[in-house]
Amino acid sequence: MKLMRVGPIGQEKPALLDKDGKIRDLSAHITDVGGSAISQEGLARIAALNPASLPELAAERIGACVAGTGKFICIGLNYSDHAAESGMAVPPEPVIFMKATSALCGPNDDVLIPRGSEKTDWEVELGVVIGKTAKYVSEAEALDYVAGYCVSHDVSERAFQTERAGQWTKGKSCDTFGPIGPWLVTKDEVPDPQKLSMWLTVNGQKMQDGSSATMVYGVAFLVSYLSQFMSLHPGDVISTGTPPGVGMGMKPPRYLKAGDVVELGIEGLGSQKQTFRADA
Amino acid sequence: MKLMRVGPIGQEKPALLDKDGKIRDLSAHITDVGGSAISQEGLARIAALNPASLPELAAERIGACVAGTGKFICIGLNYSDHAAESGMAVPPEPVIFMKATSALCGPNDDVLIPRGSEKTDWEVELGVVIGKTAKYVSEAEALDYVAGYCVSHDVSERAFQTERAGQWTKGKSCDTFGPIGPWLVTKDEVPDPQKLSMWLTVNGQKMQDGSSATMVYGVAFLVSYLSQFMSLHPGDVISTGTPPGVGMGMKPPRYLKAGDVVELGIEGLGSQKQTFRADA
Repeated sequence: MKLMRVGPIGQEKPALLDKDGKIRDLSAHITDVGGSAISQEGLARIAALNPASLPELAAERIGACVAGTGKFICIGLNYSDHAAESGMAVPPEPVIFMKATSALCGPNDDVLIPRGSEKTDWEVELGVVIGKTAKYVSEAEALDYVAGYCVSHDVSERAFQTERAGQWTKGKSCDTFGPIGPWLVTKDEVPDPQKLSMWLTVNGQKMQDGSSATMVYGVAFLVSYLSQFMSLHPGDVISTGTPPGVGMGMKPPRYLKAGDVVELGIEGLGSQKQTFRADA
Repeated sequence: MKLMRVGPIGQEKPALLDKDGKIRDLSAHITDVGGSAISQEGLARIAALNPASLPELAAERIGACVAGTGKFICIGLNYSDHAAESGMAVPPEPVIFMKATSALCGPNDDVLIPRGSEKTDWEVELGVVIGKTAKYVSEAEALDYVAGYCVSHDVSERAFQTERAGQWTKGKSCDTFGPIGPWLVTKDEVPDPQKLSMWLTVNGQKMQDGSSATMVYGVAFLVSYLSQFMSLHPGDVISTGTPPGVGMGMKPPRYLKAGDVVELGIEGLGSQKQTFRADA
């Protein structure tokens, strides 16, 4: 299934995309795309509905594809080629950092370039949405705790991230720096999360053209690994790192300016399109 | 006022501590200690109530003193003496990192030493609770966005934090690593947040004995600074760094073991007491 949230910011309704591409209102059945609605049992209940029986919603703004995200966890340098272009070694175990959950936004919302930014950069990433509380889980059982996948854009301000006194959070957490969606695609539609092509363009020019096949640490390993350090809860999102082709790695580096349009997508998970503009 | 949350985990009721030390139930007036209830207007409505008219609650478990925390932001190396004991320089601007909000717990809950931990350490910190959305605010107006203050214990696993591949989040986010409270003390009761004595003992032995007077970056500066990078929202908590005396800085270093009891407090903000035990 492709679950989504449609409506103005803060008033999104839960919905699903049916096989004909129609948006079907789920708000009579679930309060939102999150919490118990994305557990295995919750998803089974949604799957049992006849989409044609659900009211059709107009295609308006699409919100972040999951609600109630308590943690927005990112994995750094998780593609060997991206580590190389960043001038950093592949880490001996996953690098974890957090984006503020207040950065989450819809897949096609404008992205705000923060005041003082000169190095706003792009990163297409595979997002993993947790469906069930996970703590100390093994790699073999890890995917049982995953509800599904989404496109995640880990927008990054490189000067804030690396030139402003330690720790990356500062350059990762600005408002609108976390578009996710358009859909939470349930895992039954993603037979192998390690074989997904992914791409990103800036003003129509291809910048990233990779595959989750070249991740250093795969999804199951990451869920298991993270769960050794903290409980993962339904609605938590893990953004699993970016393949090569970010602006910081270009010679000379290229960063985003007001008016730039970024499009990005992952095989089977849909695509996003954002216009970048200066924050007021 | 001293606002608090009382009851079993996940079922806490909002309450206030009256002048006689009685816990008064606020659940007929606010849904929780968070959101609009801790705005200036919300706090004024609570202050207008006659505490003696509110039902008394039994002194049972105290929960985290604020609900709906979207971000749990920490400031690193914010006391010059603590930076020195950590063998690190005072940073030229604040170091920001995040603790997982899933680490939040009550002030007297048991703290779980995670599997594989050998370096679980203590840090008494002044917590700042945001009451109003703040973005690009000046230092002069920053305290207008603060609802109040609390004791925050930034429990830290030093090996996870610094020996397990980059970024501190990993050693800061374990379940129960974020006791806050007992109370959210509204700012009218804290005339100067930069003149508060703070202390911590392990099994009765004084380990930290400092004052917020020696913070490198003060509360107003921090709120303003953070708001340049991301919007702060009601219920967000900023843990402002620890004074000297952590286990990592001792020669030889001393870390917490199952059965250890840590008590900590800040002038006017109350105290916490936790028993440390091995995670199941």
